[in-house]
Amino acid sequence: MAEEFVAGSTTELPVKRPREDEEGQNGVSASMDTDAAAAKLPDSISAVIPGWFSEISPMWPGEAHSLKVEKILFQGKSDYQDVMVFQAIVLLRDFWLQSSTYGKVLVLDGVIQLTERDECAYQEMITHLPLCSIPNPKKVLVIGGGDGGVLREVARHASVEQIDICEIDKMVVDVSKEFFPDVAIGYEDPRVTLHIGDGVAFLKAVPEGTYDAVIVDSSDPIGPAEELFKKPFFASVASTLRPGGVVCTQAESIWLHMHIIEDIVTNCRHIFKGSVNYAWTTVPTYPSGVIGFMLCSTEGPPVDFKHPVNPIDVNDKSKRPLKFYNSEIHTAAFCLPSFAKRVIDPKSERKHLELQK
Amino acid sequence: MAEEFVAGSTTELPVKRPREDEEGQNGVSASMDTDAAAAKLPDSISAVIPGWFSEISPMWPGEAHSLKVEKILFQGKSDYQDVMVFQAIVLLRDFWLQSSTYGKVLVLDGVIQLTERDECAYQEMITHLPLCSIPNPKKVLVIGGGDGGVLREVARHASVEQIDICEIDKMVVDVSKEFFPDVAIGYEDPRVTLHIGDGVAFLKAVPEGTYDAVIVDSSDPIGPAEELFKKPFFASVASTLRPGGVVCTQAESIWLHMHIIEDIVTNCRHIFKGSVNYAWTTVPTYPSGVIGFMLCSTEGPPVDFKHPVNPIDVNDKSKRPLKFYNSEIHTAAFCLPSFAKRVIDPKSERKHLELQK
Repeated sequence: MAEEFVAGSTTELPVKRPREDEEGQNGVSASMDTDAAAAKLPDSISAVIPGWFSEISPMWPGEAHSLKVEKILFQGKSDYQDVMVFQAIVLLRDFWLQSSTYGKVLVLDGVIQLTERDECAYQEMITHLPLCSIPNPKKVLVIGGGDGGVLREVARHASVEQIDICEIDKMVVDVSKEFFPDVAIGYEDPRVTLHIGDGVAFLKAVPEGTYDAVIVDSSDPIGPAEELFKKPFFASVASTLRPGGVVCTQAESIWLHMHIIEDIVTNCRHIFKGSVNYAWTTVPTYPSGVIGFMLCSTEGPPVDFKHPVNPIDVNDKSKRPLKFYNSEIHTAAFCLPSFAKRVIDPKSERKHLELQK
Repeated sequence: MAEEFVAGSTTELPVKRPREDEEGQNGVSASMDTDAAAAKLPDSISAVIPGWFSEISPMWPGEAHSLKVEKILFQGKSDYQDVMVFQAIVLLRDFWLQSSTYGKVLVLDGVIQLTERDECAYQEMITHLPLCSIPNPKKVLVIGGGDGGVLREVARHASVEQIDICEIDKMVVDVSKEFFPDVAIGYEDPRVTLHIGDGVAFLKAVPEGTYDAVIVDSSDPIGPAEELFKKPFFASVASTLRPGGVVCTQAESIWLHMHIIEDIVTNCRHIFKGSVNYAWTTVPTYPSGVIGFMLCSTEGPPVDFKHPVNPIDVNDKSKRPLKFYNSEIHTAAFCLPSFAKRVIDPKSERKHLELQK
């Protein structure tokens, strides 16, 4: 398998082949050992390093992040994507760390969606950046987010009365409930209603002005989430939000995807008449180690995302303390490196250059 | 080679073998092609993915970051470490990016020290976090930093009159001057004096209170930089600083090395009687995608690192605009995720818990 990998160029890697080119693999093999599972997997496992999972995608050509696999716990093919869960290696005798592991890892179409070790950073930031920026959010919609982690975080907000989630892939929900109970616990909140279906279609059926906040927890724009990065989708989101309502969407990495981000920012500036902002956070198992978010508000009561008005870290009395988010990190997330600021916030850059004269 | 890799456990990987176990490889092979070079290299190249460089270390067991190699430009063995330079693959036909590459990559003992694409984040932050926190720095010492990037950044400060650098490994300096001219340009500043030697010994010979700022640009604490993470070293640094002088040392990743960081913080609290702070930044090619810095000041005029008094991004009129650093990012760098805050800043955490009652 290693030779096969070397021979191909990065863009020829079989990570995103159309469904029709693939053999049927609808069978689900839970609790298989690594060798047996690897033999059946054409993609990430063993194509690069036998016994390791390597994340390879045309979205980040020429680089790969690899985790040593202790055991593959699940692999299946839904109507939309390949779904895999593995246990990352546990190293107890390590010199620096008494116990070191990323825990269980959820992979969709060869791309890591979450690991037990660092999911807190993503879930807490994509949720509390929007919900802490407005007073008393009551109705919240989650698009994607089938693992339930965003629901878990939304549920921390006592003001919230209704949490709808629209996830396209039921297998993601089922697998998360089986293998990631600490994440999928989000589904246990009585305020949650799960809709299995296409987020784009769901939004069209929602009456205008329904939600205080929409959170779009999507995968990358080259799989089932492609539509969630386009202008019509943002327009639908805007119309389902009340005046002064907020949206937070996954918006890729400043280090890898500045062209995608530039497009998203341009689209959002056209559509959202409130504020349009970009924030980012660290997530070690995402490519380049960071992930960004678009945060926009509709016309109405102004929303200053950079100065949260609803400080969850002080009010939250749940038994699960926040691991990552706090009010300082909230504000810091909007501070951009200069190279990103020049693209995302060129007005501020021009002002800065004038000051230099 | 791939089979050989699979057979070994992560901790048995030959990344950090003692020098005496290795064959002599003092010859320097510049501009070799990948295959020829790989055949000679027992470590990082081709041990994991043929044609790719994979960064494997007991400092981050069970994970590896890999870059596709276009060409190995240099490999040698100094008295202290393995030194390698390679050109990362250039992908011009990529769907998302018109041109995508990390450029040339400097590797010491199998660990990436810098890439042309993201070195700006590290060099700018490790330099300007301390130098922008005090007014008019005049005398600056750099320990390590043989690539010259920190010198390049120090030189932006017009107030600086004297820049000393003590680097243990002359090969790092020579290789950087040959392959990384945009980084090693730091040596061209007339204020710079290069001392090849051991930083620990150098500091002992420096009269007390000599420097306004010391910057410790070290590799990880399991190679030649081991001493630079210990208490006696910090004590030496403190004594070479003037009252209210500042130090910034490379201080590992909050995601991977909380135990090391906890020790460093404890040591620094004992030694530095001014302020003791931890900051972090994103660097995609470092393990976990982040790197941290200890920032301390000696007893004397108080230093509030979080609110810089010397804003280089407005005053700097050089032809090389800052790529990463700005005053907002400076302050944001000190905002820690809650899990790190609980360890590094427990007082603030206790205050926070009291607020929750």
